Amino acid sequence: MLTFFRSLAVLLMLLVSSAQAFEPFQPLPDKPPVPQDNPLSEIKIALGKNLFFDRRLSVNGSLSCNSCHDLAHGGADYRPVSIGATGIKGRRSAPTLWNVAYQTVLYWDGRAESLEQALESHLLDKTVMAMPSQQLMTQKIAAIKAYVELFDASFPDQGVNFKNITRALASYIRSLKTPDSAFDAYLQGNKQALSTSAQRGFKTFVDSGCASCHFWVNLSGPVPGLAFKMGEGFYELFPNYRGSEFESRYGLSEDLGRYYVTDDPEDRHLWRVPVLRNVAVTAPYFHNGSVATLDEAIRVMAETQLRKQFSDTQISDIKAFLNTLTGKFPEIYLPQLP
Amino acid sequence: MLTFFRSLAVLLMLLVSSAQAFEPFQPLPDKPPVPQDNPLSEIKIALGKNLFFDRRLSVNGSLSCNSCHDLAHGGADYRPVSIGATGIKGRRSAPTLWNVAYQTVLYWDGRAESLEQALESHLLDKTVMAMPSQQLMTQKIAAIKAYVELFDASFPDQGVNFKNITRALASYIRSLKTPDSAFDAYLQGNKQALSTSAQRGFKTFVDSGCASCHFWVNLSGPVPGLAFKMGEGFYELFPNYRGSEFESRYGLSEDLGRYYVTDDPEDRHLWRVPVLRNVAVTAPYFHNGSVATLDEAIRVMAETQLRKQFSDTQISDIKAFLNTLTGKFPEIYLPQLP
Repeated sequence: MLTFFRSLAVLLMLLVSSAQAFEPFQPLPDKPPVPQDNPLSEIKIALGKNLFFDRRLSVNGSLSCNSCHDLAHGGADYRPVSIGATGIKGRRSAPTLWNVAYQTVLYWDGRAESLEQALESHLLDKTVMAMPSQQLMTQKIAAIKAYVELFDASFPDQGVNFKNITRALASYIRSLKTPDSAFDAYLQGNKQALSTSAQRGFKTFVDSGCASCHFWVNLSGPVPGLAFKMGEGFYELFPNYRGSEFESRYGLSEDLGRYYVTDDPEDRHLWRVPVLRNVAVTAPYFHNGSVATLDEAIRVMAETQLRKQFSDTQISDIKAFLNTLTGKFPEIYLPQLP
Repeated sequence: MLTFFRSLAVLLMLLVSSAQAFEPFQPLPDKPPVPQDNPLSEIKIALGKNLFFDRRLSVNGSLSCNSCHDLAHGGADYRPVSIGATGIKGRRSAPTLWNVAYQTVLYWDGRAESLEQALESHLLDKTVMAMPSQQLMTQKIAAIKAYVELFDASFPDQGVNFKNITRALASYIRSLKTPDSAFDAYLQGNKQALSTSAQRGFKTFVDSGCASCHFWVNLSGPVPGLAFKMGEGFYELFPNYRGSEFESRYGLSEDLGRYYVTDDPEDRHLWRVPVLRNVAVTAPYFHNGSVATLDEAIRVMAETQLRKQFSDTQISDIKAFLNTLTGKFPEIYLPQLP
């Protein structure tokens, strides 16, 4: 598997250099992929928004989805790892939900093949919402009359059930897009959209090898519809070069990543390449949230993945480039929950 | 003190009956009282809104003000008592912040004489935000450049300091008003605004004695500018009649209330009369959040305060009346935090 991805990455690098029609970087498409059994609808999105902000989705009413994936803060929280409803810390850092709908697989280890599947485990995970069972989750929502009406309207003939709770939530999350970043404008032909420093940073980002993993729509590798299907992961070794000072300082190899999912020794330290859109507003960084600043994250990546040390100017240029990946956050008004 | 309040209550009841110009019930005034040393300004309210939604106000970045005083859920949470940033439960139920600016004193035991004072203790309370000191709270905010600019604009010559953090937050909370409830319309002369059942409920509410404590703007007794000043409490005995089954079932007398503040045995079981505006959307009820439904809360109050048992129709009428106290919640846009 790894060899295949590496070859693909190399192929893509060639494509970057020769500027083919098959573009390795692309503006955020209007619409994310949607699974056939959960078509989007306005009412489903509205229902999902209510559920997203509703603390009753956690076992003790203390957390909503927005508690850790805070839409007032780039779709993530400020913590290395989040704290679940019952006070148990999560194992890995909460990623932003903005543009997550464009990912092929979910979680740092890619163990969910759709948003719906990720949501199922979030609701029952004792380090997250900690609901004791699908049945109790469903009963809790079904006891709220206004929700029953919204579910009936969203899922005729089905109404409230556990799968539909995840479907409504997934539909809302699919609406969370931040288009129109400066980088999108640049890709669409406005060369002034990037400062000289950001343009230099972009060049370094491509030439030095960052882009061999961080490419395409979310700068996180393949997205559905572009060679990959939903459910197919894109994993890379991290740290790629072992034994650096950063590795021990930030405990980067303590977690074996995808190995815990597959039990395959080849998958040790393999991670889903994370989204770089909005990276400037979603500190702290890495699967364990151990690195507080973007400068340091760039330094760590250079050393552990590319065995390179960037100069201060290069780091500042790459940072200027990464800053151009911050999109336009739409205005979100708080629902008044039923 | 108690005798004074009781006499006042009796006086008010007389006024209710004789419908004097001195109205015991009043629509929500446009503007809440504002302390002289913290005049309202647009920018201060905007700054306070950012702070209100910012989890960095808690020691570990897990809680914002909105976590327990959830503006998507009537300004409160769903829990009997809230859970603080470090997992410690609070002693008493989080009250709604909507219209709280019209209260004379804050907390169930009235121990804060202004919003600013209540906020000071919230930030440092280890069962709430759990910040270790004023200095660390200030340093944390002062390290965020965009906040420094907002503080400089809001408080010229002062900038970021602990008092100003509470002042900005208090200013935002003073903007949280829900005017135009059906009851407000009724008070302004639209007699159709209340259903027949709600009108009967209002009459029962007044005639049976509920209104001897639950009167005036917030149906919680005196408000600033109406005989009372800010900082002056309005306390009542709860339970008033001891020994009921409700008292033991819901543990209503386990907490000695204001006594813990004053150490005066006369203040045992004395509580600030709570706001009834939006009561229908802010379950659970009472200082310990022990009662889940409004029906049961009405039954408990009748028995413990008035030694009465209301009929099912009376309860349903009073509930219909209390439902008319739900105001118009303004649309709130989530800030994009600095």
